[in-house]
Amino acid sequence: MAMKRAATSAIRAFSSSSPSSPGSSGSSTRFLHASAESKKIVGVFYKANEYASLNPNFVGSLEGALGIRGWLESQGHQYIVTDDKEGLDSELEKHIPDLHVLITTPFHPAYVTEERIKRAKNLKLLLTAGIGSDHIDLKAAAAAGLTVAEVTGSNVVSVAEDELMRILILVRNFLPGYHQVINGEWNVAAIAYRAYDLEGKTVGTVGAGRIGKLLLQRLKPFNCNLLYHDRIKMEPELEKQTGAKFEEDLDSMLSKCDIVVINTPLTEKTRGMFDKERIAKMKKGVLIVNNARGAIMDTQAVVDACSSGQIGGYSGDVWNPQPAPKDHPWRYMPNHAMTPHISGTTIDGQLRYAAGVKDMLDRYFKGEEFPAQNYIVKEGKLASQYL
Amino acid sequence: MAMKRAATSAIRAFSSSSPSSPGSSGSSTRFLHASAESKKIVGVFYKANEYASLNPNFVGSLEGALGIRGWLESQGHQYIVTDDKEGLDSELEKHIPDLHVLITTPFHPAYVTEERIKRAKNLKLLLTAGIGSDHIDLKAAAAAGLTVAEVTGSNVVSVAEDELMRILILVRNFLPGYHQVINGEWNVAAIAYRAYDLEGKTVGTVGAGRIGKLLLQRLKPFNCNLLYHDRIKMEPELEKQTGAKFEEDLDSMLSKCDIVVINTPLTEKTRGMFDKERIAKMKKGVLIVNNARGAIMDTQAVVDACSSGQIGGYSGDVWNPQPAPKDHPWRYMPNHAMTPHISGTTIDGQLRYAAGVKDMLDRYFKGEEFPAQNYIVKEGKLASQYL
Repeated sequence: MAMKRAATSAIRAFSSSSPSSPGSSGSSTRFLHASAESKKIVGVFYKANEYASLNPNFVGSLEGALGIRGWLESQGHQYIVTDDKEGLDSELEKHIPDLHVLITTPFHPAYVTEERIKRAKNLKLLLTAGIGSDHIDLKAAAAAGLTVAEVTGSNVVSVAEDELMRILILVRNFLPGYHQVINGEWNVAAIAYRAYDLEGKTVGTVGAGRIGKLLLQRLKPFNCNLLYHDRIKMEPELEKQTGAKFEEDLDSMLSKCDIVVINTPLTEKTRGMFDKERIAKMKKGVLIVNNARGAIMDTQAVVDACSSGQIGGYSGDVWNPQPAPKDHPWRYMPNHAMTPHISGTTIDGQLRYAAGVKDMLDRYFKGEEFPAQNYIVKEGKLASQYL
Repeated sequence: MAMKRAATSAIRAFSSSSPSSPGSSGSSTRFLHASAESKKIVGVFYKANEYASLNPNFVGSLEGALGIRGWLESQGHQYIVTDDKEGLDSELEKHIPDLHVLITTPFHPAYVTEERIKRAKNLKLLLTAGIGSDHIDLKAAAAAGLTVAEVTGSNVVSVAEDELMRILILVRNFLPGYHQVINGEWNVAAIAYRAYDLEGKTVGTVGAGRIGKLLLQRLKPFNCNLLYHDRIKMEPELEKQTGAKFEEDLDSMLSKCDIVVINTPLTEKTRGMFDKERIAKMKKGVLIVNNARGAIMDTQAVVDACSSGQIGGYSGDVWNPQPAPKDHPWRYMPNHAMTPHISGTTIDGQLRYAAGVKDMLDRYFKGEEFPAQNYIVKEGKLASQYL
């Protein structure tokens, strides 16, 4: 930690040599890094309560605190964790004026608004423990010169696995059978009349980034007709390996699909993109899996389409807002298989994103670059997937 | 149907040229086939009631009756279907004395006991609409010279898909999250503390017949450590393709597995094979998926192990007996993901086994052999998987 203290910082961003200057790490020209003084780091995580002690690897919880408290404190930093994130009386709010680093997670999102950013005079770095930083006003963060970074890749496998689980749950009509069991009933017909095999069905992913690609790879042995829509075609090798076909026009793809999976980030362009009109153009009885973001769907349009049968089943772990209030209509619509936001926060995922956050903090303290793919906002610019 | 009528039949079995006599089909030496007279065919299926009219392809139900009524009756045969199968007052029982062909299904099993076989003086052919004929006393059927045949392959894909769904449901701890949603709750920690990725886990299948192999193929992209136990090693090509390793000793394999899937038929050897002692030797918190047969497990041992945490999760669609009574303890044990017997009776599966039953009846009427792999009991001998 014998780093030179930055006298001034033209922008408030974590900054150092650009990725195009390899070998400059640690050189005397790199002084726009974290100062060596004690930092105030705040983490906002979901509380585990009685579950905290049940698994020593439960590092993603408030109590687990990413497993970095000892490491941070041994270096003289202050580390405050809370789950209390909403409103002006919240614990988070108390620390906004003087925190240097804020660690948040999509699973219990602390909404970082333009107003909060304005009041966070010392804030330099926003780290997302996980993937998906749309709970942060990224434009405001960019304008303020903040750095925003995620642990890219930390839970792409988790989410892709979870999507395939949800596809199977919907296609095979798992939940009505489970309900029968716990209610003391037995009626095979009431399940079977709308239970199908996945084999032979047409599955389309809206977005074929890392998660979409991992899903397509896992779908391959199921002998489906695989389609994907994205801004650009995937590498020919992967297209060949998965057998997935590129669909340039979204609505044209959607009209062919028995099952649609949403794998695109929430942006101004994707907000509400599945509205009444678009859903009406899809196949009657289409099954939709959305582990991306709740606000990509028009909430009421989904409820109405599930009720009418236009959507045959809807499953996902993302809601608008989160936590979903008790009266969120998706809790009570027919043929859903919803859970709280969980897919990326398996124990395996937690261990990966905790390690990733620690690595970025370590690099921040040392004035080193993060892995290039982790940046969401850097030097005033948004990562391409958020444009 | 201009077939020669068999004057006598030394054995009561459907019989014709042996598979080793190709080209003899239809020759004058082949007279031990079905006589051309009207046959009484009885089918026992689950009743669909209000669900019958909701899907035109719902052929596996009592009302759907495999979609072969018109075809059978146009050829002068009598076709009776019922779901009433238990006890001496049942509809099935009325027809036992004079039926020629009995079609049953594992999803609503009509138990064909030695006693029923003795009273079924005209019975020649037992067809299972689906796979799994252990509801028939196969030794008694063999002794009586009956032919028993299944629609082999009709639902292997369905069952393998369903197994992978259940693996993911258990590993990823889906159901507690779903319960939170429908109960108006939101507690990510209560799910996450025991939610894992499938990636990197050790999965073993007990039995690697057709379903086990299809499961291994579907597991391949999940990057697990795949093991299998069977009487013989699979083809080197498939072993290479799936990356699965052969385990000669069952208990040795079980001790390594995070997840165990049962893919072996119910026989005298496998009945109760997962008893208290064997379960105790498995990994603490092991997840078990069993779509094979309920009686392979010791019912109470599973309940006790789920309660103690020795079994971390149990999922399957098979019970002992079926339908499971209201007070079956598996309905109420912790961390289960049970359904009624459904995995092989998807709409896709129904269409396949209905077509397979029709094909075998057609061959029976014409005095032709069945596909060799369909035979469970033929000329007094049991198929190898039931030995």
